[in-house]
Amino acid sequence: MESDWKDWQNTGAYRRLLELARNPYDLTAPDALIKDGRLTRYICRTDVLSLHYATQRVDDQVLACLQELADECGLIHQFAAMRRGAVMNSIAGFASENRQVLHTACRDLFSDKPAEPAASGQARKEIEKVKTFLEEVEKGKLCNKQKEAFTTMVHIGIGGSDLGPRSMFEALRPFGLQGREVFFISNVDPDDAAGVLRKVDLRRTLVNIVSKSGTTLETLANETIIRRAFTDAGLDPSLHCLAVTGEGSPMDNPEKYLRSFHMYDYIGGRYSVTSMVGVVMLGFYLGLDQVMDFLRGASMMDMVAENPHIKENMPLLLALLGVWNHNFLEAPTLAVLPYSQALHRFPAHLQQCDMESNGKSVTRQGRPVSAKTGPVLWGEPGTNGQHAFYQLLHQGTEIVPVEFIGFRKSQYSEDLVIDGTTSQHKLLANLLAQSVAMATGQTSDNPNRNFPGNRPNSIILADQLNPLTMGALLALYEAKIVFQGFLWDINSFDQEGVQLGKVLAGRFLKHMNGRKTQANTLEMAVLQATKLI
Amino acid sequence: MESDWKDWQNTGAYRRLLELARNPYDLTAPDALIKDGRLTRYICRTDVLSLHYATQRVDDQVLACLQELADECGLIHQFAAMRRGAVMNSIAGFASENRQVLHTACRDLFSDKPAEPAASGQARKEIEKVKTFLEEVEKGKLCNKQKEAFTTMVHIGIGGSDLGPRSMFEALRPFGLQGREVFFISNVDPDDAAGVLRKVDLRRTLVNIVSKSGTTLETLANETIIRRAFTDAGLDPSLHCLAVTGEGSPMDNPEKYLRSFHMYDYIGGRYSVTSMVGVVMLGFYLGLDQVMDFLRGASMMDMVAENPHIKENMPLLLALLGVWNHNFLEAPTLAVLPYSQALHRFPAHLQQCDMESNGKSVTRQGRPVSAKTGPVLWGEPGTNGQHAFYQLLHQGTEIVPVEFIGFRKSQYSEDLVIDGTTSQHKLLANLLAQSVAMATGQTSDNPNRNFPGNRPNSIILADQLNPLTMGALLALYEAKIVFQGFLWDINSFDQEGVQLGKVLAGRFLKHMNGRKTQANTLEMAVLQATKLI
Repeated sequence: MESDWKDWQNTGAYRRLLELARNPYDLTAPDALIKDGRLTRYICRTDVLSLHYATQRVDDQVLACLQELADECGLIHQFAAMRRGAVMNSIAGFASENRQVLHTACRDLFSDKPAEPAASGQARKEIEKVKTFLEEVEKGKLCNKQKEAFTTMVHIGIGGSDLGPRSMFEALRPFGLQGREVFFISNVDPDDAAGVLRKVDLRRTLVNIVSKSGTTLETLANETIIRRAFTDAGLDPSLHCLAVTGEGSPMDNPEKYLRSFHMYDYIGGRYSVTSMVGVVMLGFYLGLDQVMDFLRGASMMDMVAENPHIKENMPLLLALLGVWNHNFLEAPTLAVLPYSQALHRFPAHLQQCDMESNGKSVTRQGRPVSAKTGPVLWGEPGTNGQHAFYQLLHQGTEIVPVEFIGFRKSQYSEDLVIDGTTSQHKLLANLLAQSVAMATGQTSDNPNRNFPGNRPNSIILADQLNPLTMGALLALYEAKIVFQGFLWDINSFDQEGVQLGKVLAGRFLKHMNGRKTQANTLEMAVLQATKLI
Repeated sequence: MESDWKDWQNTGAYRRLLELARNPYDLTAPDALIKDGRLTRYICRTDVLSLHYATQRVDDQVLACLQELADECGLIHQFAAMRRGAVMNSIAGFASENRQVLHTACRDLFSDKPAEPAASGQARKEIEKVKTFLEEVEKGKLCNKQKEAFTTMVHIGIGGSDLGPRSMFEALRPFGLQGREVFFISNVDPDDAAGVLRKVDLRRTLVNIVSKSGTTLETLANETIIRRAFTDAGLDPSLHCLAVTGEGSPMDNPEKYLRSFHMYDYIGGRYSVTSMVGVVMLGFYLGLDQVMDFLRGASMMDMVAENPHIKENMPLLLALLGVWNHNFLEAPTLAVLPYSQALHRFPAHLQQCDMESNGKSVTRQGRPVSAKTGPVLWGEPGTNGQHAFYQLLHQGTEIVPVEFIGFRKSQYSEDLVIDGTTSQHKLLANLLAQSVAMATGQTSDNPNRNFPGNRPNSIILADQLNPLTMGALLALYEAKIVFQGFLWDINSFDQEGVQLGKVLAGRFLKHMNGRKTQANTLEMAVLQATKLI
């Protein structure tokens, strides 16, 4: 890849942006938001989402420099290469996963010419397996020993095999098939599994166990617990368990699982929602037609991400606005605030996707980075957040850039007109009010009622949160994260930073069950100090 | 209060700490964690919790300076004054709420001499009302028209009336009375209420509506929706609704509510969990005896918070370690990571409590602060987080101080030995491993497998998460936040920063339902740009 990119801090655009950042657009000046048609000019639209960024501290000059930066660093070129199967999960000259990055291929199913036909072919094959499986469940060909239909699915996974699927399920809950329910177990905390087991009727439950390697500690522990529960209830777990795993993994075993669905090593956990990791569970809950809408939404956004013009390329624009705030205006965090209760786990998914991808300190050439990489990403749904941490967003000493997400219509159509407006109106009025208040601020004679403003934010809007828009929103953030990683010249697809903790956990466990091969002073001392042995 | 405090940046301790921060304790040096008995010396114990801080970048000199800082700034003195009824919710010389701060009085029920007898007397009176109410529910004196017992409570509130109670309920779920269930509605998003209404049997449901002012927009909207649902089901809502509100508020109305429980203006929303705001719901779910354990745990920690020695005063020590990391080592955020699925909403509650309290820029004298105040607080339960954002914690360019929370025993006693250890063992082994890995780091020839270490963290440990320890943990953080506010010389008890958004939301709503009294260009332009009118 070396020929494709340039050290971003060594470009003319970077230097001009540094200069411009000394005096960024002042959102608190009179009419700052409405002059020059800013509110309507600073909108990026796609078929289902629009991005409103008039409340960012940018002007036409900054945007032109960001465009140059994207061009000089070949961001579009790298994205296109990724979709076409380039080996991008690597660090040059050092041991690394050295893999392709092809989560986009899982949804590249709607054109005659997919960018990477082999991977999209594999995705299509797995989807056919899901289709057959769902038809058999629907028609009663696949049922329990008492010939009753399966109504419930317990999804077991952790990290990328949990947060992504879970947040999509929560987001799309109102669209579920009649009578179907899904529960999730992820934590190694035994109370997590026990809590779910209390709620389900095991006889009518399918268990979907998701682990690419087939060896994930937490997932196997939870699988063991739930298999035991089946056995204790006089049921045969192999007639209830499904596997989503890599081909040939220890879990790819027809004797233990009713069905196996495959994922491939070119799909990273945190980017795996649109693979079998999410599709099996979502298919059971939503039916395959709605899952295809979800994949279509994601695929549409992947196409948008190849547009070379940043004003038309929503993920790239979002990425560059983020870089402007993080690297030039020096904001260390990013808040994602959905004005939709259904998206209550979406920030947690993005937290993983973004922070695990871009929380890195080494370039793709194995050199230390010299600029900040990924921010701390956090968030909660509005308007709850307004009654919680928004105080700091408005008046705190840390500047927190915000990405708001809103919808014109509710999901259920149950809404009530109170004082002349619906709850959905109130939700949107609050979203707009926060965006404007953060940007413009307000002066007061009472210093405690003074709002400094100039708190940068964007609004992502859609008509309704449904499978299609959810797919687009997911892919928007996936591509945004990837673009930022390309610019920072880091490998956004590995996670070496989680290894040391795993190794040390293993050592502590050996001490805890008395199997230590040799005394290790540090671990023993820690265990004694915490009174754990 | 002016006589009680000193500008913290104008103390000798502050200057020495600045000096010491240039070369903080190096946790990556050989044996850095075990020498000088550090692991056992750097523990602060109370009856039910212990705080392990050997993995912070402090040494005896720093701790001595932090003690001096606490002394010079009169932190204990201020805390004691707060508990005894001093007017602390104020900004000198400017309009402000000008109130006492007496959330501690709600649980100061276990000594002959409460710090503020009048407020504790009011708390006791309300608890007696809860006791009577619960007995009547239990004995069937209070039941529905069909003489069936109430089994379900829907708790409606937002912000402090939601996050605190909800996170405590989730934490203590396994301790519930047989057959009782609780649901929560908070968001103005109409889908939030619709989702809950699908799950409950209204005939056997009590609705607990919580609003101090009795005028909170979101809560009233949700109350209207749920009252409508009762009426539509042929039920009389006044026989199902309870109110928790200020005495004399619009909601303090026996014609509309079965019972009213009172809170007082000396209790801020985010500090109100141990008042009626949390106690009515927790009483229904846990029974009063367990709620009293919860209050006892909180009260115990309040006593600890008056100990002048920082090494014995857990909340003060936690506060000062936080200030060391935030103001001297310049970490902008704080992660709270509980190794317990039951605490999955506790970070969200702390996020509110901390960021709404200390996200301020004006001193108690109305002058601009000259140091950073409250950090961005965020977190998710481990070990899920390990598979998500921990990558950035270990190898990112932002240093994130961490507060881990762990328990030696699980809540349900359902656990399985796999590979010689239980799931609870695995959970704790992971917690310890993360703490040590962040502190010591590890060098590698592969730059991508290099861990820089020196990532400061603490562990808060207890035997089990139960009502008593939960009460202590809650009060630990409440007092920590208050101590930091005292040191930064800000008012941790108001929330002027949420007002501007409310005003603007009202204006947008007027435009949206066509009731605008005069055209306002900005709002109209925003609504048109977002295609909302």
